[in-house]
Amino acid sequence: MTYCVGLLLDEGLVMLADTRTNAGMDNISVFAKLQVFHTPGERMISIMTAGNLAISQAVVNLIQDGLADPETGAIQTIHNVPTMFKAAALIGEAVRWVHKNHADAMRKQDVGFDVSILLGGQIAGRTLRLFNIYAAGNFIEATRDTPFLQIGEHKYGKPILDRAVNSSTTLTDGVKLALISMDSTLRSNLSVGLPLDLLVYKRDELVAPVQRRICENDDYFLMIRERWSSALREAHRNIPAPDWALD
Amino acid sequence: MTYCVGLLLDEGLVMLADTRTNAGMDNISVFAKLQVFHTPGERMISIMTAGNLAISQAVVNLIQDGLADPETGAIQTIHNVPTMFKAAALIGEAVRWVHKNHADAMRKQDVGFDVSILLGGQIAGRTLRLFNIYAAGNFIEATRDTPFLQIGEHKYGKPILDRAVNSSTTLTDGVKLALISMDSTLRSNLSVGLPLDLLVYKRDELVAPVQRRICENDDYFLMIRERWSSALREAHRNIPAPDWALD
Repeated sequence: MTYCVGLLLDEGLVMLADTRTNAGMDNISVFAKLQVFHTPGERMISIMTAGNLAISQAVVNLIQDGLADPETGAIQTIHNVPTMFKAAALIGEAVRWVHKNHADAMRKQDVGFDVSILLGGQIAGRTLRLFNIYAAGNFIEATRDTPFLQIGEHKYGKPILDRAVNSSTTLTDGVKLALISMDSTLRSNLSVGLPLDLLVYKRDELVAPVQRRICENDDYFLMIRERWSSALREAHRNIPAPDWALD
Repeated sequence: MTYCVGLLLDEGLVMLADTRTNAGMDNISVFAKLQVFHTPGERMISIMTAGNLAISQAVVNLIQDGLADPETGAIQTIHNVPTMFKAAALIGEAVRWVHKNHADAMRKQDVGFDVSILLGGQIAGRTLRLFNIYAAGNFIEATRDTPFLQIGEHKYGKPILDRAVNSSTTLTDGVKLALISMDSTLRSNLSVGLPLDLLVYKRDELVAPVQRRICENDDYFLMIRERWSSALREAHRNIPAPDWALD
């Protein structure tokens, strides 16, 4: 399993992914699920993948090697697509290519075609955007009403995002909230695991984003886990007892 | 969908269920999912059901009408089973009876055989116990290590329970935590809905449990929702910014 969350904020973009992959409970590995395609001053594109690792890796390869544009025949890659919308469409095409070439053989081995991809980024002169591309190759986009998207094991970490994230959330608070959301998921689902890959990108800067790998002993993450747990315990203790009798 | 949670605490039992059932998004109703079978001084048994409503209602009828004990042939009902273990086994038998009589016809209509049941309670002279009975009719029991069980849409409301509930949690805190867990679920899944049915039973008392239906305008629940939301917002704001630069 996997948990990835992207926040599209007025100040910029926060992307956070775990790195655990498992083929059964007895075969657990670390694979980066967050990839960055950055040309200074021109584009900063990041993707995070959930689902079958073979599909994800094939898609990541295809969008770098390039696929023919269905209309013009020109080879499009994640490095040369002119817009983020075209980038989402390119990833969708890559997912469909993998489906066409592998889904039948996978089905014969009882392996479902399971993949979903978060795509966030900006191309010079254009808007910062965040998309979720599905296994069918179609996609949705984050908006001001719903400024975050999640893939993989999303339920444990959703309540805090539902309550606290909106477009005007600062990048710093976005980082905290993404880490809190991830912490809730890590505690409840063993198949989501450290280390984490974090990316923070300031809107319109097109410089290299801040990237950080957060391991078991990361002081900041340890502090968030500890503070958040104590805050929750204190919060429920501070709620008065019911005014109706319990006995 | 449904969310039900049961807490088995040193002080007693907390059971909380929502009441929303839906056959599609356009056919939503209120049905009680929490049932109590109480003989003063002799037994206090409560069950909560999730899954297909026709199966749940059939099971609730069968355990009251009675099924023949597979070993002795004697008719057993929820009112006369001698132990909570036998009560769990009786519910399991009822689930299997419904499966035998309805599952094939349901499958022909593409309806899955989906049911799970939380059973909590105590019979005079015996221990307070809490069970989760599956669609196969088998079951597990809550222990001191894991003193809560959930059925239905359980993920949104699990992080707070994982962090805050243990056997020594008081009944009052148990009520608060169950309501907080339910609130997280209500916010994230439309198919879980108010009103709520709450039951609180003090271990070894065998008197009628406290029961309360919590509706939209319940002052205590409104206060918990408000306080909990503010506490979460304050908690993440109080966490310091990362010590690594975001720019």
